[in-house]
Amino acid sequence: MTIKQLFLEKEQLKSMTDYQFEGWVVSNRGNDKIRFITLNDGSTIDNLQLVIKGEMIKNKLVDEISLGSSLKIKGKINLTPSAQQPFELVVEFLEVIGNVDEDFPIQKKETSIEFLREIPHLRNRTKLFKAITLVRNSLLFEIHKYFQEHEFINFAAPIITSNDGEGAGETLLVNDETKNYFFKQKAFLGVTGQLHGESYAQAFKRIYTFAPTFRAENSHTSRHLAEFWMIEPEMAFFNLDQTIHLADDLLKTAIRNTTKNYPAEMQFLDSLQDNKLLPTLDKFINTKLQVIDYADALKILEKHKDIFEEKDLYFGVDLASEHEKFLSNEVAKGPIAVINYPKDIKAFYMKQNADGKTVAAFDLLVPGIGELIGGSERENNYSKLVSRLKELNISQEPLQWYLDLRRFGYAPTSGFGVGFERLVMYVTGISNIRDAIPFPRVPGQIKM
Amino acid sequence: MTIKQLFLEKEQLKSMTDYQFEGWVVSNRGNDKIRFITLNDGSTIDNLQLVIKGEMIKNKLVDEISLGSSLKIKGKINLTPSAQQPFELVVEFLEVIGNVDEDFPIQKKETSIEFLREIPHLRNRTKLFKAITLVRNSLLFEIHKYFQEHEFINFAAPIITSNDGEGAGETLLVNDETKNYFFKQKAFLGVTGQLHGESYAQAFKRIYTFAPTFRAENSHTSRHLAEFWMIEPEMAFFNLDQTIHLADDLLKTAIRNTTKNYPAEMQFLDSLQDNKLLPTLDKFINTKLQVIDYADALKILEKHKDIFEEKDLYFGVDLASEHEKFLSNEVAKGPIAVINYPKDIKAFYMKQNADGKTVAAFDLLVPGIGELIGGSERENNYSKLVSRLKELNISQEPLQWYLDLRRFGYAPTSGFGVGFERLVMYVTGISNIRDAIPFPRVPGQIKM
Repeated sequence: MTIKQLFLEKEQLKSMTDYQFEGWVVSNRGNDKIRFITLNDGSTIDNLQLVIKGEMIKNKLVDEISLGSSLKIKGKINLTPSAQQPFELVVEFLEVIGNVDEDFPIQKKETSIEFLREIPHLRNRTKLFKAITLVRNSLLFEIHKYFQEHEFINFAAPIITSNDGEGAGETLLVNDETKNYFFKQKAFLGVTGQLHGESYAQAFKRIYTFAPTFRAENSHTSRHLAEFWMIEPEMAFFNLDQTIHLADDLLKTAIRNTTKNYPAEMQFLDSLQDNKLLPTLDKFINTKLQVIDYADALKILEKHKDIFEEKDLYFGVDLASEHEKFLSNEVAKGPIAVINYPKDIKAFYMKQNADGKTVAAFDLLVPGIGELIGGSERENNYSKLVSRLKELNISQEPLQWYLDLRRFGYAPTSGFGVGFERLVMYVTGISNIRDAIPFPRVPGQIKM
Repeated sequence: MTIKQLFLEKEQLKSMTDYQFEGWVVSNRGNDKIRFITLNDGSTIDNLQLVIKGEMIKNKLVDEISLGSSLKIKGKINLTPSAQQPFELVVEFLEVIGNVDEDFPIQKKETSIEFLREIPHLRNRTKLFKAITLVRNSLLFEIHKYFQEHEFINFAAPIITSNDGEGAGETLLVNDETKNYFFKQKAFLGVTGQLHGESYAQAFKRIYTFAPTFRAENSHTSRHLAEFWMIEPEMAFFNLDQTIHLADDLLKTAIRNTTKNYPAEMQFLDSLQDNKLLPTLDKFINTKLQVIDYADALKILEKHKDIFEEKDLYFGVDLASEHEKFLSNEVAKGPIAVINYPKDIKAFYMKQNADGKTVAAFDLLVPGIGELIGGSERENNYSKLVSRLKELNISQEPLQWYLDLRRFGYAPTSGFGVGFERLVMYVTGISNIRDAIPFPRVPGQIKM
């Protein structure tokens, strides 16, 4: 049994029932006659209060137990309805499994998040990183469940690929130890599973990837990682409207269920955000998603250009993070989908609209983060794709297999990519993406 | 609605009910008065029979429909209890979404599996690869579900790591486009998430990874990939017995549910194996897992050494694929766990047994494939780990963080790794691992 299950059953608990737990010590206080130890087993941030009395305390072991020690214990529930916590466990058997050396860097006193970032193998023992990890796990499983319940098939896009993605210079190269080409040609770490995913959407209609993705961008921001997880659904017979609706429904379902699965963790994270996190998520879950045309968004941004660093807002400009955040933080005061971007700032495979200028694409922007999701309809016209590749000076030959999909019973597809760590940021309210993944990888730094 | 759902409801179907489907054509036969088109939508290998009559046939479109064309159709169910298939859909609306160029390489006539391997973006349109993909998806979700229902937390181990795994020379290097170190030091593609996973098991008790893994082995066998997916659970407070039991129960549950989820696909795959696949899986599901000591396995192999290429079977020898297959195919006639391997052929982190010679490790061998799972208790003794690193000439400094886990409230962990594509092979009965993953990566070859 886990401590989480015990707390879930707290209304039904009976005094004198036997339980056993394993976990790690959060605190050890008391005296020679009675000790109170709080225990955590990672199933929740809630701790179980252990009470130790009499003979067991004389046993020197109890003195050596400190923050971080691992224990096995057995005992009986004691209901304490008038106390702050409604029950405690009176210990009858205790085994110390592992003690803690004095230089254990996790201590009772507050430790800075920057310091914790230096010890990714230990920061998971803090309440904050426990909460983040549990929420991350819940989001992951809710996303898998959502797709499986909506007739999607998981698709394993290749990680190592001979396609260098959407442009040059932002991909990582893979070689063997001698720096030779292990694959007899240039090989890259994938920046997207979408192109390969489209081929599977042509047989299974609805597919999704959930996999690590790589960017060699030299970005040292709080929103970029060199290695991150991405969810990329691709749907045949879907248009842009249906795709935006799917993205919206996926997010709302995953967030709604996660706040239900981990109430203690979400309340704790909320308390770190001046209790603004839960109302924000609640509002998103219960409000229709706003959708705005890129051209209309531009007009609004124009009116407020004084507050931006980048003030040159012409049709064709790529929105900077400051613009994206303004649109979600200030205009929508919540998530907002911007649609119909100029084709010149979007990828070659996006479906060109009839106006000849824009593509049937959307970015979903959320407060504090900016772009969380990007997606589009895919160009189904073979000739238009070939022309676009020429215009962009992208070699056609390596992508011939992708173009050929259009010649073989092509059902137009649409899809999008969710940056999973950005979603974790949005749901937990944390401000740095390096805290949303266990061992973050950023340019010039790779710990462990 | 999907065709799979329609077939699941076949007992309740009522004539004249309206339905609409989207999918791809499998066959188009008939004449000027009546046409029979079979349609597949990827939700199952079962096809829906469409009937087209009258005016609609005169419309030239119907002649152009061929294997692979994508369609949208609406129509009414017609029950045909005396026919081979108990219902058909009489089409009232038909839209051809995409037609097929003449050089479409998937044709009615049988195509060799080797040829299909050359076109990984199109082979998913065949019945065989549809069945494999659906089974693979089912196994993936069943595994996630199993862990989530058993109080495991998904853990994202880093893919790019500064640890080169268990030995040298079998890892892939990651650089930027200029072949410089993007991370300012040597960086590798992970060969295991276990070491990092252990640090999370020290806070969450039970964690699992489900992620791509990489080997630069120059192996050109039917059982090796350079990029494959691995599932690695790691459990604190677990011993070897509990770990083997977990591996066994995980496999049995995932296989049992998959045969339930995809009966048509499993029966089709069974038919390709002379109807030996389902009885084999059924036997595994319903039989207690056999466990044998490495030393005892060696004695049995000794007795049959005449049939092996490698006849030198002394204590300390690493079992070759032929030995592993003999133990599962002939001795156990099913899966078998070999335990207590000599420490010299196993990784440094495995828990040394009291005999000083062996480690508390297990390999789970299955018929036809050999090793499907490898696992162990982890060494909890700091000094023993340090000595072992010295003996094996592995540098201690990069692993200091891993050693330190033993000093900070360490609860001994155990875990294992499941090669996901090998599991797909075992459950589908296919004989080459390159058919168990959409875009296989092997030395010297990287398609798309």
